[in-house]
Amino acid sequence: MKIRRFSTLDSDFQANLKQLLAFETAQDDNIDVVVANILKDVKRRGDEAVLEYTNRFDKTDASQLGELEISQSELVAALEGLPAEQRAALQAAADRVKSYHEKQLMSSWSYTEADGTLLGQQVTSLDRVGLYVPGGKAAYPSSVLMNAIPAKVAGVQELIMVVPTPNGEKNQLVLAAAAVCGVDRVFCIGGAQAVGALAYGTETVPQVDKVVGPGNAYVAAAKRRVFGVVGIDMVAGPSEILVICDGKTDPDWIAMDLFSQAEHDELAQSILLSPDAAFLDQVAASIQRLVEEMPRKDIITTSLTDRGALIHVRDLDEAAEISNYIAPEHLELSVEEPLAFSKKIKHAGAIFMGRDTCEALGDYCAGPNHVLPTSRTARFSSPLGVYDFQKRSSLIMVSSQGAQVLGKIAATLAYGEGLQAHARSAEYRLK
Amino acid sequence: MKIRRFSTLDSDFQANLKQLLAFETAQDDNIDVVVANILKDVKRRGDEAVLEYTNRFDKTDASQLGELEISQSELVAALEGLPAEQRAALQAAADRVKSYHEKQLMSSWSYTEADGTLLGQQVTSLDRVGLYVPGGKAAYPSSVLMNAIPAKVAGVQELIMVVPTPNGEKNQLVLAAAAVCGVDRVFCIGGAQAVGALAYGTETVPQVDKVVGPGNAYVAAAKRRVFGVVGIDMVAGPSEILVICDGKTDPDWIAMDLFSQAEHDELAQSILLSPDAAFLDQVAASIQRLVEEMPRKDIITTSLTDRGALIHVRDLDEAAEISNYIAPEHLELSVEEPLAFSKKIKHAGAIFMGRDTCEALGDYCAGPNHVLPTSRTARFSSPLGVYDFQKRSSLIMVSSQGAQVLGKIAATLAYGEGLQAHARSAEYRLK
Repeated sequence: MKIRRFSTLDSDFQANLKQLLAFETAQDDNIDVVVANILKDVKRRGDEAVLEYTNRFDKTDASQLGELEISQSELVAALEGLPAEQRAALQAAADRVKSYHEKQLMSSWSYTEADGTLLGQQVTSLDRVGLYVPGGKAAYPSSVLMNAIPAKVAGVQELIMVVPTPNGEKNQLVLAAAAVCGVDRVFCIGGAQAVGALAYGTETVPQVDKVVGPGNAYVAAAKRRVFGVVGIDMVAGPSEILVICDGKTDPDWIAMDLFSQAEHDELAQSILLSPDAAFLDQVAASIQRLVEEMPRKDIITTSLTDRGALIHVRDLDEAAEISNYIAPEHLELSVEEPLAFSKKIKHAGAIFMGRDTCEALGDYCAGPNHVLPTSRTARFSSPLGVYDFQKRSSLIMVSSQGAQVLGKIAATLAYGEGLQAHARSAEYRLK
Repeated sequence: MKIRRFSTLDSDFQANLKQLLAFETAQDDNIDVVVANILKDVKRRGDEAVLEYTNRFDKTDASQLGELEISQSELVAALEGLPAEQRAALQAAADRVKSYHEKQLMSSWSYTEADGTLLGQQVTSLDRVGLYVPGGKAAYPSSVLMNAIPAKVAGVQELIMVVPTPNGEKNQLVLAAAAVCGVDRVFCIGGAQAVGALAYGTETVPQVDKVVGPGNAYVAAAKRRVFGVVGIDMVAGPSEILVICDGKTDPDWIAMDLFSQAEHDELAQSILLSPDAAFLDQVAASIQRLVEEMPRKDIITTSLTDRGALIHVRDLDEAAEISNYIAPEHLELSVEEPLAFSKKIKHAGAIFMGRDTCEALGDYCAGPNHVLPTSRTARFSSPLGVYDFQKRSSLIMVSSQGAQVLGKIAATLAYGEGLQAHARSAEYRLK
């Protein structure tokens, strides 16, 4: 395997880095047309349309959409059917994720001014949320935890999960995760038709206020289209890790951390920055040796060859600068004083500090969310959190005295903008 | 003018209400194609493309894009050139908006578990933000305040405003508002080409991390397209007000409050709910009488006729229920105990409480933001705020002891998902 080596001393380093990071989700026009038609059909025909698409695409044979709902007792049975160790791990992860997310709960606030005017924000939760869970290989129970728990902590009253079950095959770990999180209803539907059912509501599937969760290109296109009718979470790109290491961590550990990102898919990106060139050689050697043992060797090799890089930097400060440019989804600080170093980081989805904190711990059970901004979007967005399932209403109660002062200001500005009814409305309140 | 009258006792009330609220922004495919081409061109040719489109669409005659930048001294001159009363009102509004938004600043947080594991979130501001301000009639200085101040309070280092100046005509109030808010740079460009310049960066216009601010259909389409490359704020629909009144407010006041929304544009929506049928008659009479005095009579008449309604409800509780279904952008509670009543409100952009609190005060100077979720999106979204210009990075520092416990959980779950590198990476940290 040939993995790229850069040095920040290279004259073409900036151009190389830019090219390395270049990734734009091609918006496939064909997919978009197919999705637009499915959504239109689901909006118009409801259950009937969802049932037809599901039977066709997932090769199921239901005569009513209601048959595709999974009962709570089936979810509980899935949980009880797990091997003890797996069940305990799932529950332990859920408990830690819940405990961390409870710290994110926002509260209403207000303050009263001297003249009695009250201002603030009232915080409320969304009523009903839809959670998309992919079927087949990419069906990750951890993804159910990470999406469902923040919603439940926020106080969402009804959480509706959709998961396609091609040929009727159900993933027991996913159903068990739904049981652990207290998902309220589960439908075995997927694709654009499931997104449409959640966004518009059908006779059987209730309309939700927001749709979250990962999915394939059809699901992503459907989410983009229904955005505005309902809220959506981010549309994620391929996963990435950036490791900054001072050269004093076991190179095998770092190699495996890079693999843990690369094994997700061929487009995943793993980058290592170190001021120690000899260490980069060691990690390269570890990669060559360890990849042979990996069941997902082919995916890892393609990912590291096509999109990976080992970069030699002048010093750790320069590594921080490059990291801030990259704004990585996952950032490992495998250095001596990671907490102090983290203050230099401006843009990252999650910061994993210290040699013991491998990204995998965060993916499953450390507590923070594993749904993170990808493709440099950490420059302007945040991990999924409880705050994504709460929203704010401004509170304004102007006292009679306050209206005298504010009314004049508002009227002056309203006349300046040519909005006379605004001005008159404020002036009516003047005594 | 004929304004709709409904009663919740009507057998077809639910259907009528649904139809009244029905509004979906038609996504015009022609606009979308034009915008896609402009964006592609700006991305490829930078300054040259922006200059060409600007000279063509805005009938300007610049030979370099730099000529279209407005200097800080010109902004200050605009502010100093305002009539004293207008300048004072602008400054007073800015001060109040700033003071309110400072309450929204989020801070980093973390906690340490018994075994020394640290978890939390680091909060940072966006580096650079683009603010779109429409040219021509809809150029509102208040909109500059409401978008620029939260960004500055959040700590955004560079705020770049774009505003088209067709035929070179500059709106002095808008420039003055930019001066008051400390906008860093202003370019006289607009349309999709301005959004493209901000999103991709050109030789002259720096690339930003997020684009906010209202615009026409071309601007909205461009924002949708660059979403992902940069962050965007919401894509707003027509403005709406819902007034709930117990019948004891001066009907002229309520009529004028409804006008203050209706005068924005023909698609704006004004709805009044009251349990007092006689009061609805009085308001209808006030509307007939007062509309004659309004300079924007035609817009108000069209808006109220096409999209307005006076609705008779059983009681105020039922009004709250209907309001929660509508999830209005602006909600006036013109009732006796507005603060107590506000607890029943689950979904609204802003809640204006009490007879003295007309919406116009909030539009300009009460303090809270006037950029609010429209078209029922208050079910899942919030007013623009400081939080839209800050973002979070998860902090995870697992202690050596913590890694022993978490590593086993993570490995168990990772093997369950078939991700062996994840499992191995966690297991390396086990002693």
